[in-house]
Amino acid sequence: MDNKTPVTVVGLGLMGQALAAAFLAAGHPTTVWNRTAGKADDLVARGAVRAATVAEAVAASPLTVVCVVTYEAVDDVLDAAGGGLAGRVLVNLTNGTPGQARRTGARVAGLGADYVDGGIMAVPQMIAGPGALILYSGARAAFETHRQALEVLGEARYLDGDPGTAPLYDLALLTAMYGMFGGFYQSLAMVRAAGIKAEEFTPMVTAWLAAMAASMPAAAAEVDAGEYATKVSNLAMNQAAFPNFIDANRALGLSPDLLLPIKALIDRAVAEGHGGDGLARLVELI
Amino acid sequence: MDNKTPVTVVGLGLMGQALAAAFLAAGHPTTVWNRTAGKADDLVARGAVRAATVAEAVAASPLTVVCVVTYEAVDDVLDAAGGGLAGRVLVNLTNGTPGQARRTGARVAGLGADYVDGGIMAVPQMIAGPGALILYSGARAAFETHRQALEVLGEARYLDGDPGTAPLYDLALLTAMYGMFGGFYQSLAMVRAAGIKAEEFTPMVTAWLAAMAASMPAAAAEVDAGEYATKVSNLAMNQAAFPNFIDANRALGLSPDLLLPIKALIDRAVAEGHGGDGLARLVELI
Ligand SMILES: NC(=O)c1ccc[n+]([C@@H]2O[C@H](COP(=O)([O-])OP(=O)(O)OC[C@H]3O[C@@H](n4cnc5c(N)ncnc54)[C@H](OP(=O)(O)O)[C@@H]3O)[C@@H](O)[C@H]2O)c1
Ligand SMILES: NC(=O)c1ccc[n+]([C@@H]2O[C@H](COP(=O)([O-])OP(=O)(O)OC[C@H]3O[C@@H](n4cnc5c(N)ncnc54)[C@H](OP(=O)(O)O)[C@@H]3O)[C@@H](O)[C@H]2O)c1
Repeated sequence: MDNKTPVTVVGLGLMGQALAAAFLAAGHPTTVWNRTAGKADDLVARGAVRAATVAEAVAASPLTVVCVVTYEAVDDVLDAAGGGLAGRVLVNLTNGTPGQARRTGARVAGLGADYVDGGIMAVPQMIAGPGALILYSGARAAFETHRQALEVLGEARYLDGDPGTAPLYDLALLTAMYGMFGGFYQSLAMVRAAGIKAEEFTPMVTAWLAAMAASMPAAAAEVDAGEYATKVSNLAMNQAAFPNFIDANRALGLSPDLLLPIKALIDRAVAEGHGGDGLARLVELI
Repeated sequence: MDNKTPVTVVGLGLMGQALAAAFLAAGHPTTVWNRTAGKADDLVARGAVRAATVAEAVAASPLTVVCVVTYEAVDDVLDAAGGGLAGRVLVNLTNGTPGQARRTGARVAGLGADYVDGGIMAVPQMIAGPGALILYSGARAAFETHRQALEVLGEARYLDGDPGTAPLYDLALLTAMYGMFGGFYQSLAMVRAAGIKAEEFTPMVTAWLAAMAASMPAAAAEVDAGEYATKVSNLAMNQAAFPNFIDANRALGLSPDLLLPIKALIDRAVAEGHGGDGLARLVELI
């Protein structure tokens, strides 16, 4: 297929609108459907075709991209698509679990269509820009057929034939992100409570996190080897310092709750005799 | 003072050894003391002078740098230093709270010495290298007198006259780091449980976290303005996706505990009517 493959986008939330806009901007004939029809207005003004039903939407293109809030919504979409999917390719970019992706893959195969699952490692504003990465897994031939169209959205990285693989990577990467954002928000709450502007403090955070992220490959090597002895920063020292974080947050009138699970892991690791090991040992306790 | 100021280092754990080694390498006459005396052996072999007592150690130099595990240990050091500190400068790089730093500053002033507190934003291996940053606050004139010597350890950034300021920044930055590492460890546990090597997955994490960290200045601006409406990723969508993280971790035989406090914040923000706001709204709920 050339890069003008007709494409359907189902789901026009913050992300779906960005996906459809990217296909339109790249010159793909683009059909759209959203439960709340009005969210298609801007896209229609830019040349998209509004389908009246999901069945009409999936019938309009060999490739349909679904991006709705959850797999419950995906199920509603599939209920409405009915037989219209036969012979087509469904690429589902909705956040979900490996299990949900595998069940949906089986259901879509039963409807006579090829199923590719995906995880969008980008926010809507990054779509079609240089930093956007989308992970795919599932039906390889279908992915390859539509790779050019999918590259419009961002780097398209195919992992393997299991539709559950892309969601696994997606959830793991987002888990790392929630951890980073949680720590960042707690740090902002701390400096703000002390009268310091978040915008003044944040350049120090980004520089510091970048410096600390540089240690991640070494931590990964420790995890793969199962060897955690350290000359960097040991668990006993981290345990000794941890009450300072709890106390300082309380003194500032803040809840230390975000810090408690990591404290619990450190305490358990030291209690189990690993005080001389580095922090990466905590992976073993999760 | 020129850059050969005699310096004393008290505390030769992983970090104190790196500090003393940096002073020695830069040509400073360096006196060292550690509770467990044997930890000074390597440094003595490289030219350091071993003091027999803390009092002897602090008497040997106009500048003493203390880096022990906690402020309880700092108190023990001060008990042993006695009157020997009078007229000298104590720079304390031990992790602690703003309150501990202020109390220690008052105690040291009472002993006739100038007190500077500091937070080391580096691991031992970074000391004296390009990425090392040390934050200082407290007695400004004393800091300026010894700035050149302190620059040996890494960039020396003076914040303000309150000895509690450097510990506040230090604890906030380390809080952000614990969040990031916690999320990273959870993500490694997830991929490992699925049979994927940590070293294979980690380059994706570091790239993804760098991309997401690029959003931090915008989040900080939202916090300073108290305005959280978003076209990026709203709390209602994050809430809807969150069970996927819990379910996927459980399915992999892992504890989702590290994720639960952030889930609780998201749930509370949505319950309070902020489902259309972005994640940075969570700062208000901490
Ligand atoms: N925003 C991001 O930064 C981002 C990044 C990566 C991945 N994602 C993922 O992309 C997906 C969409 O996110 P979003 O930000 O676009 O969310 P959103 O703005 O909240 O949009 C949700 C979409 O789901 C639709 N929907 C909900 N229930 C439905 C149902 N029962 N049947 C049909 N459609 C239904 C909504 O339709 P209505 O308009 O009718 O409500 C809307 O189009 C999510 O899985 C999210 O995890 C988002
Ligand atoms: N390692 C890092 O990556 C890092 C980074 C930034 C900041 N820091 C901070 O630097 C400080 C030291 O960390 P570290 O990694 O060097 O820890 P460490 O390797 O565990 O060393 C702890 C040091 O504290 C001494 N100490 C403990 N109790 C004492 C007492 N009652 N009286 C006198 N000395 C006592 C120990 O003496 P003995 O040898 O006799 O036990 C040892 O020298 C901590 O506050 C830490 O938070 C560390």
